[in-house]
Amino acid sequence: MSTSELNIVILAAGKGTRMYSSLPKVLHEIGGMSMLKRVIHTAESLHPDNISVVIGHGKECVREKICANVNWVEQTEQLGTGHAVKMALPHLANQGRTLVLYGDVPLIDQQTLLDLLSVADDDVGLLTDVLDNPTGYGRIIRQDGNVVAIVEEKDATDKEKLINEINTGIFVLPNHKLINWLNALQNDNAQQEYYLTDVIALAQQDQIPVHPLQVRASYLAAGVNNKAQLAQLERILQQQQATALLAAGVTLRDPARFDLRGKIRHGQDVIIDINVVLEGHIELGDNVTIGANCVIKNVIIGSGTTILPFSHLENCSIGSHAKIGPFARLRPQSQIGDEVHIGNFVEVKNTTMGTGSKANHLTYLGDTSIGKHSNIGAGTVTCNYDGVNKHRTQIGNEVRIGSGNMLVAPLTIGDRATTGAGSTITRDCPPDQLTVARSRQKTVSDWIRPEKTKTKK
Amino acid sequence: MSTSELNIVILAAGKGTRMYSSLPKVLHEIGGMSMLKRVIHTAESLHPDNISVVIGHGKECVREKICANVNWVEQTEQLGTGHAVKMALPHLANQGRTLVLYGDVPLIDQQTLLDLLSVADDDVGLLTDVLDNPTGYGRIIRQDGNVVAIVEEKDATDKEKLINEINTGIFVLPNHKLINWLNALQNDNAQQEYYLTDVIALAQQDQIPVHPLQVRASYLAAGVNNKAQLAQLERILQQQQATALLAAGVTLRDPARFDLRGKIRHGQDVIIDINVVLEGHIELGDNVTIGANCVIKNVIIGSGTTILPFSHLENCSIGSHAKIGPFARLRPQSQIGDEVHIGNFVEVKNTTMGTGSKANHLTYLGDTSIGKHSNIGAGTVTCNYDGVNKHRTQIGNEVRIGSGNMLVAPLTIGDRATTGAGSTITRDCPPDQLTVARSRQKTVSDWIRPEKTKTKK
Amino acid sequence: MSTSELNIVILAAGKGTRMYSSLPKVLHEIGGMSMLKRVIHTAESLHPDNISVVIGHGKECVREKICANVNWVEQTEQLGTGHAVKMALPHLANQGRTLVLYGDVPLIDQQTLLDLLSVADDDVGLLTDVLDNPTGYGRIIRQDGNVVAIVEEKDATDKEKLINEINTGIFVLPNHKLINWLNALQNDNAQQEYYLTDVIALAQQDQIPVHPLQVRASYLAAGVNNKAQLAQLERILQQQQATALLAAGVTLRDPARFDLRGKIRHGQDVIIDINVVLEGHIELGDNVTIGANCVIKNVIIGSGTTILPFSHLENCSIGSHAKIGPFARLRPQSQIGDEVHIGNFVEVKNTTMGTGSKANHLTYLGDTSIGKHSNIGAGTVTCNYDGVNKHRTQIGNEVRIGSGNMLVAPLTIGDRATTGAGSTITRDCPPDQLTVARSRQKTVSDWIRPEKTKTKK
Repeated sequence: MSTSELNIVILAAGKGTRMYSSLPKVLHEIGGMSMLKRVIHTAESLHPDNISVVIGHGKECVREKICANVNWVEQTEQLGTGHAVKMALPHLANQGRTLVLYGDVPLIDQQTLLDLLSVADDDVGLLTDVLDNPTGYGRIIRQDGNVVAIVEEKDATDKEKLINEINTGIFVLPNHKLINWLNALQNDNAQQEYYLTDVIALAQQDQIPVHPLQVRASYLAAGVNNKAQLAQLERILQQQQATALLAAGVTLRDPARFDLRGKIRHGQDVIIDINVVLEGHIELGDNVTIGANCVIKNVIIGSGTTILPFSHLENCSIGSHAKIGPFARLRPQSQIGDEVHIGNFVEVKNTTMGTGSKANHLTYLGDTSIGKHSNIGAGTVTCNYDGVNKHRTQIGNEVRIGSGNMLVAPLTIGDRATTGAGSTITRDCPPDQLTVARSRQKTVSDWIRPEKTKTKK
Repeated sequence: MSTSELNIVILAAGKGTRMYSSLPKVLHEIGGMSMLKRVIHTAESLHPDNISVVIGHGKECVREKICANVNWVEQTEQLGTGHAVKMALPHLANQGRTLVLYGDVPLIDQQTLLDLLSVADDDVGLLTDVLDNPTGYGRIIRQDGNVVAIVEEKDATDKEKLINEINTGIFVLPNHKLINWLNALQNDNAQQEYYLTDVIALAQQDQIPVHPLQVRASYLAAGVNNKAQLAQLERILQQQQATALLAAGVTLRDPARFDLRGKIRHGQDVIIDINVVLEGHIELGDNVTIGANCVIKNVIIGSGTTILPFSHLENCSIGSHAKIGPFARLRPQSQIGDEVHIGNFVEVKNTTMGTGSKANHLTYLGDTSIGKHSNIGAGTVTCNYDGVNKHRTQIGNEVRIGSGNMLVAPLTIGDRATTGAGSTITRDCPPDQLTVARSRQKTVSDWIRPEKTKTKK
Repeated sequence: MSTSELNIVILAAGKGTRMYSSLPKVLHEIGGMSMLKRVIHTAESLHPDNISVVIGHGKECVREKICANVNWVEQTEQLGTGHAVKMALPHLANQGRTLVLYGDVPLIDQQTLLDLLSVADDDVGLLTDVLDNPTGYGRIIRQDGNVVAIVEEKDATDKEKLINEINTGIFVLPNHKLINWLNALQNDNAQQEYYLTDVIALAQQDQIPVHPLQVRASYLAAGVNNKAQLAQLERILQQQQATALLAAGVTLRDPARFDLRGKIRHGQDVIIDINVVLEGHIELGDNVTIGANCVIKNVIIGSGTTILPFSHLENCSIGSHAKIGPFARLRPQSQIGDEVHIGNFVEVKNTTMGTGSKANHLTYLGDTSIGKHSNIGAGTVTCNYDGVNKHRTQIGNEVRIGSGNMLVAPLTIGDRATTGAGSTITRDCPPDQLTVARSRQKTVSDWIRPEKTKTKK
């Protein structure tokens, strides 16, 4: 790639009327990231000198949601793509080049852009596609094989409409020319807009060579104008990601039923069953197995750990050789140690569990620290909330909490302590001893229990 | 459309042997509605003068399950489609027209039928299809471009079998002719049945023009004879519904993993994640988000409400800006107010919850009324059932129910009351005060807990 | 099929580098069974005189995991397919025939092999395929229509590379010739390996007719070299299984979202909703309905029983007209009787429940025997584990266990006994009577509850 200065302009001012959304179009997500953010990331991967994002509709919202080191350029009137790029002129160097991208063309990739940038610094690079049905797109007009103009659908003659080589809108342009061309653009066309595409005809006038590059797959340059297209590109992205994981040795029981909305690092012999959703930052050690229908977000899982079906894990870490689920719910700030078992209908929040500890059934552990090799009985609840404040429960090593215990925090339970089933524990429990809080069992022999009337009166 | 009288006859007498089912074929469901019901709905949308449904196999069952204002016509012997329509003669007007439909052709739509009915009142309209593989279907025989007959597969010559224009079985016929034709039908064919399709040859004899209309997509006229075809049409219907929702601005993370078995009304910016099933009557306000793997039936959800993954909601209403799930189960007759939180492993039945109230963890609320801004502790159960009768629990505003409470109904808990963790509450709790039912905590210092034997004897 | 002796050799020595797995390639699973086991099952269905499996990489692991009555043959060096078959020579009869299969070609079926075995006993049968893109496969060389050789990709001329008829590697060979041919194989080729495919040229020299048989679908002979191919064949298998179930009358709401990893027996009118996973041995009676997203392994379900969504069932049996779920978890060794109801967030393990008994809400039943028509209240836990041993809970007929009971095993609760809500039951309960263990309810009138500070100081 050339070492001349590179400016990138991303057009992101459109409303996206056909999205039928109050959210600006470029903020809709693909693969768990807004389309614009995705394009900015790809742009950043080229290490440009600067990135300018032209915003209009919902500009405050876009600026607020996209946290990126870019020049925000406002386009107050929507007068066409040429006008939009012109708004970014203050950020373009006098020399060097400008790459034009779009906030609603989310799957453009680094490789395609590097290929496009391989043209000579003073020439124009133009990303094209060839479509079976080119209706609606700007057509590439060639003379003697050379690109001489782009004609928009609405301005095209019937003969030009038969051309199926189309403009993707993605260009690289020499700045010293671009500045002149932008100032020379006219809006004497069907839409009365300033088309960026007219720079091609101006390049032809200035005898600047235009190098068309055909995109290697249509989806790379596909734009999103409605929810159907959004869903289509979402599926293409997911398919690509699944293919990459398979190639890296991950077993996916059904690549068509797998969603990754973020980034994954994984070891060897990872098995992911059907219908799993991974979000955010995911790390899976060797021999991790994830059961059917799990939803997992920002989680680090150690090697040999099994996540059983229907588990919902978020912002936590799990050690090695642990067994989680089915129907487990791990909430943020939980650190689950090695060989820990967390079973069905168990919720864990802001809690640490040491090696080998277990909470297998119907339990809520919130704001709790549990040592090693302790067992929490079924139906136990840490009462961490007094209606105003959250308090912590400290449970030592080798503790046995009986079933159905209410552990009223703040509370400390010593090492090797045992609590009796059905106890409400309100004061600290000493180590090594049994603590109970239980009523006497009585049988009421003359009690008559309600029964359904068997005969109608 | 003509204003002459319109009779509709729906043939629904077949057994459906290849369905391998004790249920009559036309009662099998597509999109959550029986095939016959779906055809009746489409027929009704044409505002006919009457609808006759010809039933035979499982006729009592069909009549009982289909609640519709139609003439039920019994065909006691299965002597062919011509014979079936003849059974409906008593319900056909002397003038006007008859449209023939099929209880096992479920996806026929209003537009196709309106197009078919656009032929002149005295002519015959015939819905056709062109198939790559026409084997098994009646072939359209043309002379000089005009349709002159339909030949069934079993009666077709080898040359006729090469014709790929086929009869869908859907006709519109002028009544004054149809009556004669039905009486003229013969069963001198391979199957020894009275074919309705023979009316085309009779029309030709009577010099009544036959207007073929090719169906715009094969699925519209596709019949269901086995479970594979049922599944195929189910998927086509679901795909169509998903496409319509996307066009209306709903975000579907995967249109191929979305099931709607009923009707939906929705606001703007609705997001539906993968693998969601919606059944019955669904209303979703603006900005409603439905997480992965939810099953939702007959539910109204207010704007800004989030349903987290793995929620199972049925016959209830949820206010605005509420947060439900994951793993929440809302059962019938529940009214959940604005800003309510219902969390994991919580079951709610026949219960109202006022604005801002919360039940976040492992709780059963049955036959309960909860005011505003009350909090229900983890592991709490409303004991609404004495083995015979259900009783109600009344909980006021700003109440704090402790964790692990057993609330033995009938019971009233006053405004701003608090209950202690682990209490079994059997009598009413006064407002503003703390009520507890709790045993003293004791530590048994000389208790020896069971331990695993570490050495073998 | 011929009655001459049949030996089968399965090649299973490869490492499968591109699987990126520490598990030997042939142990990776398709449809819940390792590829090698699947091939052995298909081989066994031909009732051969013996089966030899040639193993190399991970041979101890393969032997240990595959429990089958085969001759294990070690190939210590990977010198090619011809060399691998040669290792099995001690197990081949002097007369009769040898069929060569592959541990990584998992979907080969009995019918294809029977067709291949229909060649004359002294001839060679060769399974071929015709591929649009034959790159990488051995090409079939014909002269005057007869197969005269197979040329590996790496040894093929440019002209030979254009041939799209390819070798699947599956052969049947006459033993008295095979023995000579194996000894005559040379490794003077690009890979310096002994190719089994060279036997074709040797057969040609010996004037033994070679009968090519084109496989009826490519997947039957497709090999697995990476996880993408594994996933692809998994989906093909699942599609086939779904198609077979549909043909047998099972209703699948979405055949593309159904996984069967084992064997199923089913009655009439079984309905399986989306995204269900069935594993191991499954029996479903008439009119069984399985809701969306269930995971079910080794379960027998009686007629008329409904499994509601999100149920996780393993190694248990369920009677007729029972109702299980949603969010039910049945663990191994549970026997659930007729008309039993098990509801949401209920875990059942090693437990029997008699006719009509119910546990509808948030309950753990472990090591428990429950009689008929008993009801278990919400939030009840059988405390079966004292930290060392498991103890049983015996509950009689028509018992009513109150909500939130802790039943400390070992424990016997008599017929028609009732327990009060919130009781911790540590001693046996007599029949017919009410047993409670409950503290007195007290109200603390001067208690000041914590409130959020509304003004900042």
